[in-house]
Amino acid sequence: MLGNFNVRTDLALEAKEDCDAQKISVRGVAVQEEKDEKREIYTTTVKISTENGAKAMGKPVGTYITIEAPNLSIPDEGYHREISKEVARHLKDLIGKEKKSIFVVGLGNPDITPDALGPEVVGNLHITRHIVREYGQLFLKEKESREISSLVPGVMAQTGMETLEIIRGVAQETSPDVMIVIDALAARSTKRLNRTIQITDAGIYPGSGVGNHRSAINRKSLGIPVIAIGVPTVVDAATIVNDTMFHLVDAMDESENLKNLGGTLKTLNREEKYQMIREVLTPNLNTMFVTPKDIDETIKRISFTISEGINIAFA
Amino acid sequence: MLGNFNVRTDLALEAKEDCDAQKISVRGVAVQEEKDEKREIYTTTVKISTENGAKAMGKPVGTYITIEAPNLSIPDEGYHREISKEVARHLKDLIGKEKKSIFVVGLGNPDITPDALGPEVVGNLHITRHIVREYGQLFLKEKESREISSLVPGVMAQTGMETLEIIRGVAQETSPDVMIVIDALAARSTKRLNRTIQITDAGIYPGSGVGNHRSAINRKSLGIPVIAIGVPTVVDAATIVNDTMFHLVDAMDESENLKNLGGTLKTLNREEKYQMIREVLTPNLNTMFVTPKDIDETIKRISFTISEGINIAFA
Amino acid sequence: MLGNFNVRTDLALEAKEDCDAQKISVRGVAVQEEKDEKREIYTTTVKISTENGAKAMGKPVGTYITIEAPNLSIPDEGYHREISKEVARHLKDLIGKEKKSIFVVGLGNPDITPDALGPEVVGNLHITRHIVREYGQLFLKEKESREISSLVPGVMAQTGMETLEIIRGVAQETSPDVMIVIDALAARSTKRLNRTIQITDAGIYPGSGVGNHRSAINRKSLGIPVIAIGVPTVVDAATIVNDTMFHLVDAMDESENLKNLGGTLKTLNREEKYQMIREVLTPNLNTMFVTPKDIDETIKRISFTISEGINIAFA
Amino acid sequence: MLGNFNVRTDLALEAKEDCDAQKISVRGVAVQEEKDEKREIYTTTVKISTENGAKAMGKPVGTYITIEAPNLSIPDEGYHREISKEVARHLKDLIGKEKKSIFVVGLGNPDITPDALGPEVVGNLHITRHIVREYGQLFLKEKESREISSLVPGVMAQTGMETLEIIRGVAQETSPDVMIVIDALAARSTKRLNRTIQITDAGIYPGSGVGNHRSAINRKSLGIPVIAIGVPTVVDAATIVNDTMFHLVDAMDESENLKNLGGTLKTLNREEKYQMIREVLTPNLNTMFVTPKDIDETIKRISFTISEGINIAFA
Repeated sequence: MLGNFNVRTDLALEAKEDCDAQKISVRGVAVQEEKDEKREIYTTTVKISTENGAKAMGKPVGTYITIEAPNLSIPDEGYHREISKEVARHLKDLIGKEKKSIFVVGLGNPDITPDALGPEVVGNLHITRHIVREYGQLFLKEKESREISSLVPGVMAQTGMETLEIIRGVAQETSPDVMIVIDALAARSTKRLNRTIQITDAGIYPGSGVGNHRSAINRKSLGIPVIAIGVPTVVDAATIVNDTMFHLVDAMDESENLKNLGGTLKTLNREEKYQMIREVLTPNLNTMFVTPKDIDETIKRISFTISEGINIAFA
Repeated sequence: MLGNFNVRTDLALEAKEDCDAQKISVRGVAVQEEKDEKREIYTTTVKISTENGAKAMGKPVGTYITIEAPNLSIPDEGYHREISKEVARHLKDLIGKEKKSIFVVGLGNPDITPDALGPEVVGNLHITRHIVREYGQLFLKEKESREISSLVPGVMAQTGMETLEIIRGVAQETSPDVMIVIDALAARSTKRLNRTIQITDAGIYPGSGVGNHRSAINRKSLGIPVIAIGVPTVVDAATIVNDTMFHLVDAMDESENLKNLGGTLKTLNREEKYQMIREVLTPNLNTMFVTPKDIDETIKRISFTISEGINIAFA
Repeated sequence: MLGNFNVRTDLALEAKEDCDAQKISVRGVAVQEEKDEKREIYTTTVKISTENGAKAMGKPVGTYITIEAPNLSIPDEGYHREISKEVARHLKDLIGKEKKSIFVVGLGNPDITPDALGPEVVGNLHITRHIVREYGQLFLKEKESREISSLVPGVMAQTGMETLEIIRGVAQETSPDVMIVIDALAARSTKRLNRTIQITDAGIYPGSGVGNHRSAINRKSLGIPVIAIGVPTVVDAATIVNDTMFHLVDAMDESENLKNLGGTLKTLNREEKYQMIREVLTPNLNTMFVTPKDIDETIKRISFTISEGINIAFA
Repeated sequence: MLGNFNVRTDLALEAKEDCDAQKISVRGVAVQEEKDEKREIYTTTVKISTENGAKAMGKPVGTYITIEAPNLSIPDEGYHREISKEVARHLKDLIGKEKKSIFVVGLGNPDITPDALGPEVVGNLHITRHIVREYGQLFLKEKESREISSLVPGVMAQTGMETLEIIRGVAQETSPDVMIVIDALAARSTKRLNRTIQITDAGIYPGSGVGNHRSAINRKSLGIPVIAIGVPTVVDAATIVNDTMFHLVDAMDESENLKNLGGTLKTLNREEKYQMIREVLTPNLNTMFVTPKDIDETIKRISFTISEGINIAFA
C-alpha cells in the first residue's frame, strides 16, 4: 500500500483510486458518481461505512462528497455561482433545518497563500449570531436566518495551542448546533489542485490539511456534528517526487529503449524499488510543498465561491 | 461630572485629572509619580483601592501604571528599547515568577489601522507553549522560559461572538496561569495619543477599547489574573468635539471681546451649557473616531515596542 | 469665504453648497440634478466653465458628477450593482470609445483603512493590457476589450517620491490614452461620508485626498485626459470641530436662553468669531482625521462597487 | 549542458557548480571564497569577465557575491545583525560614496508568500528622499544620509505592464544615481533555500526570479548601475523532480541491486535518458513551485535582515 511510503492525500476520491490501482478490494466503501456534463460539474460520493473500509482507505467512516469543477480556478462568475449553489445544496443535505446555530472555522495559516483558504472563506461570510441574539426570534423567524458565528484560530506556530483546543473551548462556551471547518488540503497529484471541493461529515483527521493537524476535529472530539469543506491547494513535495519516480521506474519497465538491457527492473519487487528511490530523495523534502504560481488569484476566487455557498445555504 | 455627558477616557490618569479639574475629592485613590527626565519616560501609578474610589473614577478597583513617553511614536530604536524594558519590568512585577503559562490576547480589529495594535503585538511574540509542551521540563529549566500562547479573537462583527466568550472558552480549555490582553484605547484628548502605555491588573471593563467591549474581561469573568496593556490610539469624535466646545464656552466667559456684551455665559449652569452644545452636535458622531494621519507607522512601532517588552519579560 | 478658515472639502457639491450658504454668487458654475427616487440614487452634475467660477468654488474648471447613494455603505448586492452600472455609464460618457488603453491608478495608503480605497479598487480590476499586447487585435476585436493597466503607487512617506513623479514616469513609458485615478476624499461633513461618489474630468488638485497631494494630477501635468473617481471616507478633524463650533456660535445667537444676556454675539463679525474659535482649537488637530468605526467593511464594499463599475465599462 | 533541459537556477554559484560537475571548463570565470567559520558566514565571489564565460554560465558578465548563512532562516537577532552588516559592507563596496540618490525596488508579488521578499524589504526601509529634498543639503551633510526612494511595482498579472516599463519610467522621472532591486529567486536545490543571499552588479536577467521576468533590468536597460539582491525562496517544481530523477537514474547505474540486470543504463546517453524522464513528467509542473511550510516566518526574518543591511549602508 502506498500509504507505507508516506505518500499522502486528503481526498477520499484519490484514496479510492489508489486502492483500485493496487487492486485492493475495499468492502464497506460505496462510490456513486454524478456527471453534469453541461455545467461541467462532476460529483462523486464515497461512503465509507465500516471500520474495515476505513482502514483500507486510510480515512475515517463517513460520507465524502467530491465536487470536481475543471474551471474552478478560472475567472467566470456564472460558473462559480453554479458551484456555490452545488456546495449550498450539499451543506443543506448534511446539516438539517433544525440546526439553528452554525459555527464556521477557517483553519490554516493566513500568512501562507495556499493555506489561507479557510481564513479567506470566513472573511466573506455573513455573520449573524450577534444580530440574531440581539433582536431575537423575530429576526430569526422573518428571515429564516440561522445564527452564523466564525473564528480564524491560526496555526500552532502562531498560537502555541492545538487548533482543537481553541475551537473546542469556544464551542463549549457558545454551544453551536453544528460546526463547519474549512481547510486547504494536500492532494496526491497536481491534476486535482484547485479544481476540487471535498465536503465530508467525517471532520478533519490527524495529518490532514496543509499544516498537518495533530488531533482529530470531529463529532467525537467536539460533541457536535462537524462538516469539513476542503480544497486541495498543494501537493506535498515528497509526494510529487515520489510519484513521478514511480512512474519513471514503471515506464522503464515498459521502455522500448531499455528492452535490450537484457534484464529488467521487473525483477525488483515494490519494496526494492522503493529503497532505491528513497536513497536519492532530498531528506528535507517533506517539509516542503508544491503549489501553482498563480495561487493568489486562485485562492481568492475559490474562497469566495465557498463562502457564497455557505451564505446561500444559511444566511 | 463630565462622565454624565458621555465623554469617555480609558486612561485612569485622565479620569484622575478630570476629578481634580472638577474638584471631586477621590478617597480611595492614591497617585504616585516617577519622572525619568534623562530617558524622558514618566510613570504614574494610580491605585484605586475602594469601591468609592472606583465609582468616582469610573474605573474598577486596581493598579493602573501609565508610562508616558513623548517620543513613543517617533522612530528611535534605542529609545523604544528603553520603553520595552520598562514595560517588561512592570509586567514582571505584576506577574510573579510562579506563573508559568501566560496567555496573550490581541484584542481589536486587525482591519482597522488604529485598532490593530493588539493583533500586531501578538504577531511579534515568541510563542513557546507548544515547544515547552513537546520538550518538557528540560527546555523549561534550561531557558527559564514560560509557556507563552496567544490568540487574535477578532471583533464581534467578524465572529458573531463576544470577545469574552471566545477567550474564556480557550482559557478553560488550555488553563493558563495568567492572561495578558492588549488593546487599543480611546483617550480623552489628543495630547496622550500614541505616547502613553497603560498597564493594569484591573482587566478590561465594558465600554473600553476602540471597539467598546460589552463584557468585562477580568479576574472575575475569567477566573485567573488578567493584566491589560493599552495604548490610546484614537479619541472618540464626540469627545473631541464636546471637549473643544466646552473650552470654547469657557473661553467666551473669559473673553475680553465679549465683556461688552453686557451679560455673560456664566449665568448659565453646566447643565444648560451642555444642552446648548448638545443641540448642535452631529448625531452620528459617536460612531466615529479621530486618529492621526500617520497611524500606520505609529502602530507598527508601538506594537513592536510592546511585544519586545513581553518577550524580554518572559521569553 | 470659509476657505480662508482652512476648512476643506474635496466635493464640488459641498463647495457649491458653501457658496450658496454664504450667498456668494457663482457665475460660470452650472448645476443639474437628477433624482432616481425609485433606485435611491441622486446625481448632481456641477459644471465649472470659467476661471471665475473656479476661483469662487476653490476647484479647477471641469465637470463634477456626484452620485449620492444613501445605502452605499450598507450590504445589498442588488443596490451596489445598480451603482456600479451608474458609475460605468458616466465613465463611458467621459471616456470615448476611441480611447483604447486605460491606465487606472489607485492612490492612497494601503495601510490606513479609510485611505485604502484606491488600492482596493485596483485589486479587483480585470487587467488586460498584457493579454491584449500578447494576443493582439484579434483578442481586441472579438471581445471589444480595452487595454487596462493599473498601479498602486503608495504614498510619499513610503516611496520618498511624489505620486505625480511615479505615475507620470509610468505613463510616459507605457503611453495610455487616458488615466483614471481613484482616491479617498475628505468631506466637509459626516453626512456624505461613504455614500457619495464623485467622478470628474478635472483630475486631482493639490491638497485633495486623505493624504493631501502636493501636485496636480491632471491633463496639464500628464498630457492625457485624467478622470478622477473619489469617495469621501474621512472628515478632517479640524473641519469637524470648526464646523460644529460655528454651528454652536450661530445657535447661541438664536438661543432663547441667551436672549436675556442683554447683548449678543451678533455684534461680532465673522473674523472675530473665527479668532475666538481658533484660540481653543487643539493645535495638532489638522494632522488628524475622523472616520466611522466600521470603515473596514465600508471600504471593502464601496471599492468593489467602483471596480465593478470600471469592469462593466471597459472589460 | 543542463541548461538545455530547462533546469533553472538564479544563483551564479550553482551555475558554477553545474559547470564543474559536467567538467565544462569556464574560462573568463574567477571564483574566490571567504570562510568566516566563527560567525558561520561563507562568502563566494564569482566574477564573470568575458562573454564566453557568460555563455558557459548562462549568466551575464558581472560580479556575483553569494553570502551563505546556514542559520539565516532561524530566529537569532545577533546572527541576523551580523549578516545585515555583511550585506551593508558589500553594498557600500559596489555603490560608491558619490552615488547620492538610491532607488530601491521590491520586485515580486506581495500576495504570494515566497515571492513577497522584495515588497517586505521595501516596507522596512528608512525612506529619506522626500525629507532630503525638503530640507536640502543641510540635512544631507549633517547626517551623511543619501536620498533613498522606493517602489513596489507589483507583477504583470496585477498591473498589465512589464516591471521594466514601470521602473524605467519612474527612474527617468526621478533620476536616481543607482538602483537596487530585490527579488525572490529560484534555486536549483533545496539545500540553499532561504540561507543564501546573492548580491550582483549584473542586474536581473530574463527568466530569473520567482515570477520569471521577461526583460532584463540592468544598466543597459535603465542607463544607471543596477545592483540586484536576491534570495532563493523557491525551487521550480520541474527542477526538483528533474534533478531527483537524474540522481535516480545515475544511482541505478551504480546500483548493486541492478548489476545482475545484465545490461546497464550506461548504454543510454544523456539525451536518451532525458527523453525517458521527460515522458513521465507531469506537463503542468513548470507552472508550479516548491517552498518550505514555514515560509511566512522565514520571509519575515530574511527581509528584515536585508532591509537592515540597506539601512546600515545608506540611511
